[in-house]
Amino acid sequence: MENYAKVGKTELLAELHELNSRYESYKASTVRLDMTRGKPGADQLELSEKMLGIIQKNEDCFDENGFDCRNYGLLDGIPEAKKLFAEVLGVQPEQLILGGNSSLNMMYDTVARAFCFGNLQSERPWGQEPRIKFLCPAPGYDRHFAICEQFGIEMITVPMLEDGPDMDVVERLVSTDEAVKGIWCVPKYSNPTGTVYSDEVVRRFAALNPKAKDFRIFWDNAYLVHDLYDEQPQILNILEECAKTGRPDMVYMFSSTSKITYPGSGVAMLASSVDNIAHIKEKMFVQTIGPDKLNQLRHVRMFQNKESLMLQMKKHADILRPKFQTVLRILERDLGGRGIANWSNPLGGYFISVDVLPGCAKRICALCSDAGVALTAAGATFPYGRDPLDSNIRLAPSYPPIGELEEAMERFTVCVRIAAVEKLLKERKASA
Amino acid sequence: MENYAKVGKTELLAELHELNSRYESYKASTVRLDMTRGKPGADQLELSEKMLGIIQKNEDCFDENGFDCRNYGLLDGIPEAKKLFAEVLGVQPEQLILGGNSSLNMMYDTVARAFCFGNLQSERPWGQEPRIKFLCPAPGYDRHFAICEQFGIEMITVPMLEDGPDMDVVERLVSTDEAVKGIWCVPKYSNPTGTVYSDEVVRRFAALNPKAKDFRIFWDNAYLVHDLYDEQPQILNILEECAKTGRPDMVYMFSSTSKITYPGSGVAMLASSVDNIAHIKEKMFVQTIGPDKLNQLRHVRMFQNKESLMLQMKKHADILRPKFQTVLRILERDLGGRGIANWSNPLGGYFISVDVLPGCAKRICALCSDAGVALTAAGATFPYGRDPLDSNIRLAPSYPPIGELEEAMERFTVCVRIAAVEKLLKERKASA
Repeated sequence: MENYAKVGKTELLAELHELNSRYESYKASTVRLDMTRGKPGADQLELSEKMLGIIQKNEDCFDENGFDCRNYGLLDGIPEAKKLFAEVLGVQPEQLILGGNSSLNMMYDTVARAFCFGNLQSERPWGQEPRIKFLCPAPGYDRHFAICEQFGIEMITVPMLEDGPDMDVVERLVSTDEAVKGIWCVPKYSNPTGTVYSDEVVRRFAALNPKAKDFRIFWDNAYLVHDLYDEQPQILNILEECAKTGRPDMVYMFSSTSKITYPGSGVAMLASSVDNIAHIKEKMFVQTIGPDKLNQLRHVRMFQNKESLMLQMKKHADILRPKFQTVLRILERDLGGRGIANWSNPLGGYFISVDVLPGCAKRICALCSDAGVALTAAGATFPYGRDPLDSNIRLAPSYPPIGELEEAMERFTVCVRIAAVEKLLKERKASA
Repeated sequence: MENYAKVGKTELLAELHELNSRYESYKASTVRLDMTRGKPGADQLELSEKMLGIIQKNEDCFDENGFDCRNYGLLDGIPEAKKLFAEVLGVQPEQLILGGNSSLNMMYDTVARAFCFGNLQSERPWGQEPRIKFLCPAPGYDRHFAICEQFGIEMITVPMLEDGPDMDVVERLVSTDEAVKGIWCVPKYSNPTGTVYSDEVVRRFAALNPKAKDFRIFWDNAYLVHDLYDEQPQILNILEECAKTGRPDMVYMFSSTSKITYPGSGVAMLASSVDNIAHIKEKMFVQTIGPDKLNQLRHVRMFQNKESLMLQMKKHADILRPKFQTVLRILERDLGGRGIANWSNPLGGYFISVDVLPGCAKRICALCSDAGVALTAAGATFPYGRDPLDSNIRLAPSYPPIGELEEAMERFTVCVRIAAVEKLLKERKASA
């Protein structure tokens, strides 16, 4: 069937009838399919098996300086792990703090520190400001938005364009509103659109002239090395660019090995200017005596260097690529040419972003839920969970095996089509 | 030599002369001795070697429900670890959150959450109160006090008595001043005095009638199972007592395996009422997706049950006891009967607390530093680092091997005697 918009009412009704009968069979089935979160699949986790037993004996527990990693100390991580991950991030080891297993935790704590004590350039803690605003390029990552919501930070949606956030909007708001203290960015393979920020966008970020002197870019480099294909776009190093523009303190960069080794037992990273790092460590010194250093040591012992880490990323890609291609193939097969959905075709990351007809996303997620397919809640990719057009849906292809993914995607596309036909029929009725 | 106070000036001068000549030899030596922190020694760390390689294979990574511990999830910890540590703490698993490697981090975050959002009964976030006060039984733990200082929480020193904090003072302040929102307690083997709270003290805590409805007892059960001898005092379970008095939400209990397995790679615990736990998890849900579950699994696989954990604690005691006895023997040998120092003789924990003549603690720490012995800074055991009498010194016998401990203690007692003689000579001169 061609573009739904060009199809007559009778045919649309016939289409709906047929779709509904398929849908009823899905509802009757007991299969449960989950495409909600960007979780690595079991086969990806198996890639790091060597790491599990790589520290076995008492004598394995010492870092390159002979420091006992079992004991207290080393607030910002062990030196060899800092070297390795500094190379991966393209920063100096002294610009880096290695944490526990969660970069989300480091982001949250960074907001919490600013809230309680302020940043390096703050006149007062953010919690004592009458209001704090963050710019939120959207569609974006729901957990970034949840942090803002918990701290009562007002979120301003910024449109995502092909090459990053709409920088005209960003520049205007950042340079004129001193309540704007931050922006969330996933600069490479953005969650969920897969957008890769262009060099121009990164340079415009580095050239920002914020009205708030303690403005910060929260640069979540979650998918820095998470390419799916040989074509591997590179993004400019924002810390280098900010150093060039004389604003070295403007960025907090985050990353982790959650999707390199284990989501539950990885190593989280926070990189920034040397001054910011010193400021953060002064506060952190009271918060903890140090991260799990044995786990950092496991990572270094397994990877040794960046090359071997990149080799592991190729293995991840080999597992993920067919899953992404399965989702894209079924989207194209079932929805292509119908004029009822657009979707991203990312070169990396963990998500495919689907834009359905305005007003249909919530309906589709509800239909899918009854059909045994769990999706990220419609609206989740926007601040406050409110998608103004109710049209964006995030698909996470990584976790289910391919067979389940096919099944889930077939059900998904049937739901997309049902919602579209329903909408078109209603519109025609209204205009008749 | 007998009690210094009864000795004539000539003899004191002779004593000082002899002590100074010994002191000069210490100064000339290049040996560096460290008694600053309560760090387990290398032989203690070796007790947990089995844990290092206990998870080796992909198939080892699943919890008792088949949940993949490598992946995201389980915000409050894996069920079998919750069961094990709930039994150790004497609470129900649903009263427990298992964290990463640092109970200090959990305490800090608990204060930070109250500061940013308030407790269950708070009318507003602590950060929006005109002032917040914490009671600080002292001598106490410097890192507790550092948290208060960072958050601008006013600290009120409460005297430590034989069986716990002076409860008359605690009751009066808690029941009359609504700015008093918390108190720090190390109820068993207090840092540094080794005090074990009596049943009466625990019951009086549970019976507190705080003016501030969101008052909390921060109950740092760091040394719950850290006995040195067969004589193992038991403390009442504060959570049970508070449930009895109808104030189940009044306590946050903390503990960790830092001194059971590894300081850097242990499992931290926060126990409280079911309502408090739900309140905390609601906030934590935004902060992180979950702790390092593989490390929790390692702990359960090694210990299996409380009995085997207690067996490990006996092995720790066998290593620590001779160290404590070495320190006590040299204190008695060199300082006994001189009337210039009193010290604790703890049944467990990690510290020996020494009270020297008023006004001498700083001088002694400075003398020790020049003699190659690093001690916890004088004053550290009091809020703001200010010991009103300048007389308390915390000794940490756990880390150095016994030979070094003997050497360090010999130097320490010489410094104590020098400072005492100096003080007595000065006093006699002043009164002459």
